[in-house]
Amino acid sequence: MTQSLPIDPARFLSDLHALRGFGQAGPGVVRPAFSEADIASRAWLTGRMQEAGLATHMDPAGNLFGLTDGPSLLIGSHSDTQPEGGWLDGALGVVMGLEIARAARAAGVAISCVSFQDEEGRYGALTGSDIWVGNTPLLEADLFQARDGQSFAEGRRAVAHLAEDGFVDPARFTGFLEAHIEQGPVLDLSGEAVGVVTSIVGSRQIQVTVSGQQNHAGTTPMSMRKDAFQAAVQIATRLNERLQNVVTPQTVWTIGHFRLSPNAPSIVPGQAVFTVQWRDGEEDRLQRMDDVILAVLDEVATETGLTVEAERLRQSLTPVPMHAPYQAALAEAAEAVVPGKWRRMPSGALHDASNVSRRLPVGMLFVPSIGGISHNFDEDTAEADLVTGLRVLARAAAALAP
Amino acid sequence: MTQSLPIDPARFLSDLHALRGFGQAGPGVVRPAFSEADIASRAWLTGRMQEAGLATHMDPAGNLFGLTDGPSLLIGSHSDTQPEGGWLDGALGVVMGLEIARAARAAGVAISCVSFQDEEGRYGALTGSDIWVGNTPLLEADLFQARDGQSFAEGRRAVAHLAEDGFVDPARFTGFLEAHIEQGPVLDLSGEAVGVVTSIVGSRQIQVTVSGQQNHAGTTPMSMRKDAFQAAVQIATRLNERLQNVVTPQTVWTIGHFRLSPNAPSIVPGQAVFTVQWRDGEEDRLQRMDDVILAVLDEVATETGLTVEAERLRQSLTPVPMHAPYQAALAEAAEAVVPGKWRRMPSGALHDASNVSRRLPVGMLFVPSIGGISHNFDEDTAEADLVTGLRVLARAAAALAP
Repeated sequence: MTQSLPIDPARFLSDLHALRGFGQAGPGVVRPAFSEADIASRAWLTGRMQEAGLATHMDPAGNLFGLTDGPSLLIGSHSDTQPEGGWLDGALGVVMGLEIARAARAAGVAISCVSFQDEEGRYGALTGSDIWVGNTPLLEADLFQARDGQSFAEGRRAVAHLAEDGFVDPARFTGFLEAHIEQGPVLDLSGEAVGVVTSIVGSRQIQVTVSGQQNHAGTTPMSMRKDAFQAAVQIATRLNERLQNVVTPQTVWTIGHFRLSPNAPSIVPGQAVFTVQWRDGEEDRLQRMDDVILAVLDEVATETGLTVEAERLRQSLTPVPMHAPYQAALAEAAEAVVPGKWRRMPSGALHDASNVSRRLPVGMLFVPSIGGISHNFDEDTAEADLVTGLRVLARAAAALAP
Repeated sequence: MTQSLPIDPARFLSDLHALRGFGQAGPGVVRPAFSEADIASRAWLTGRMQEAGLATHMDPAGNLFGLTDGPSLLIGSHSDTQPEGGWLDGALGVVMGLEIARAARAAGVAISCVSFQDEEGRYGALTGSDIWVGNTPLLEADLFQARDGQSFAEGRRAVAHLAEDGFVDPARFTGFLEAHIEQGPVLDLSGEAVGVVTSIVGSRQIQVTVSGQQNHAGTTPMSMRKDAFQAAVQIATRLNERLQNVVTPQTVWTIGHFRLSPNAPSIVPGQAVFTVQWRDGEEDRLQRMDDVILAVLDEVATETGLTVEAERLRQSLTPVPMHAPYQAALAEAAEAVVPGKWRRMPSGALHDASNVSRRLPVGMLFVPSIGGISHNFDEDTAEADLVTGLRVLARAAAALAP
């Protein structure tokens, strides 16, 4: 194992800015999966991979690999963006993969790189890596529809002339590393340079429907009301109290969608419908929160006499722990490059690594997001932090490559 | 003063059902102001008034009077309905006015009757009585628009051939009595037959905007959030606690309209906008509630660090106390007809009597609404209660007529 690959930070930054040029919109980027900008960027990436001596392979889902010979460590992320995306979300991990695979190729170390497709869910959700690991068959994914009605099948037709028929076999890789911006405020506020991800948190979500009685807001005394809004307020308040006994500082829960009916100032609300979503790195804690939440719904229903129903609209996501030896290698590298200026932390957002973990050992590294801003044209990271991230990932990759 | 007018309950019920026939829809009625059904019903009412020996006068706003000679007591309500209205809301008071004026005419007692126009606000709000008392000039009301874009001027053109040029002078009446269904659950639940209205409550309304910070619901730790929904929940909870120190059992307050932004399950809400409306029979208490509410908004803003702004979108309505001698006459009549089975109570809804009080002494009588249901096809009142209401109102009218 080599402790140091001949990475070139200036070349890395230059490529990162070149990728930003595809779909650039002010400081941000508009480069959704299979858009013209996305297709052009994949053609450019193909060229850069080939210049590095890597064999390229775009699979039918649009995932683009830069392959070295024989068994190798895979590094990458996604290069598609949100409809109004930042310049680093995904792109950073792809260009780090390119730079490290390029340096490794020159040094005779077995590292390949990848840009997955449609991580941002124009059609599905993390679609490219999901298909690649065999979780969703391509023909099933073909039916996924974008908001404008276009299917994934129609989308990928635009790269049919560039794509191969088959998929790269995941078994040719020994593991996967992904670097990503944090997309949260923790590293930026603590002043730390990198975060070694311990797990990608799991999440659960329910939709709660509180049914009371719609009434005239002038003629219905308070004591006779069955006000769905007030019952929802009781639920929200009690959830905050009760969940305190179960959570860690990393646990989050959110009521982000809320709808009243009939939603008029002079009518006592007859119905409130809202989501409760909670996330944690441990399946066990997700389940204990689940128990607390359902108990609170029952209590408030009993105390108020209103009907409270919960429905699971979205599949639960199980937490994905990062592979322990990969965490250790990233931690060793972080301590070597920025001693004392890094932390272990969960990832609150989903990443391609979640899917890849179904087939390979995975590890993830975070760099700070200024102000915690992401999914926004203003997303940014200090250049020094980008380069630190590259150095840490390269060091860990050198240790982990076969 | 006569203690008993020769009212005819069977004739009263027959006329009430005849009026229901104009625009009937199942058990309910569709008879908005200046609709074909409304115009036909006013032609029919004109005939009934004339048969009773009353001189009829439809004014340019569509208000229809049945007038006896000389100074008289005026009794009535409105006969237009909600777009999907009940059969008694307004109609009951109009037909009680017709029956009592008819009986009074036969007995030589000076009582006139009226059906005001557009109480239900197809164009404005309590438009006909508002114009009649001189609060809104006719030419200004002409600009009011219905939801379908039709102006009040266009609406009233449909009765131009029936209407007189001038208005009946309010000064020819000594006072005004209005009977109405309660439109709330109080009498129905208590088993009482009538309610003597003490005042029509006033109301105030503000729109509150809570501005926090929109964030990713996975990557933003709870301690770093500025969640507009959670701040709104704190406001609602604290309002309930604090208002307890100020209110009476008749006071009401309502958060009926609530909107989150961006309103997505996976995003910490950046903004919450909601209405707070409160009603009470005393201006003084409305003001004390105002003070409490604004103080709570300030407290939560300070404690959470979020911005909380309040805007008055709607004009405040001042409470309208009923004329004390009229309350006394209605109470005496109630005790005589249904001893111990009546109560004094505020009106939580607005009525034409609010407008008429600007020019004349007013009194109001309520009969029960089954289940508190109104503004709904299913609105109803037991026939016995309708007749009891008629007897009480007739007795009070006989005492109050000049």
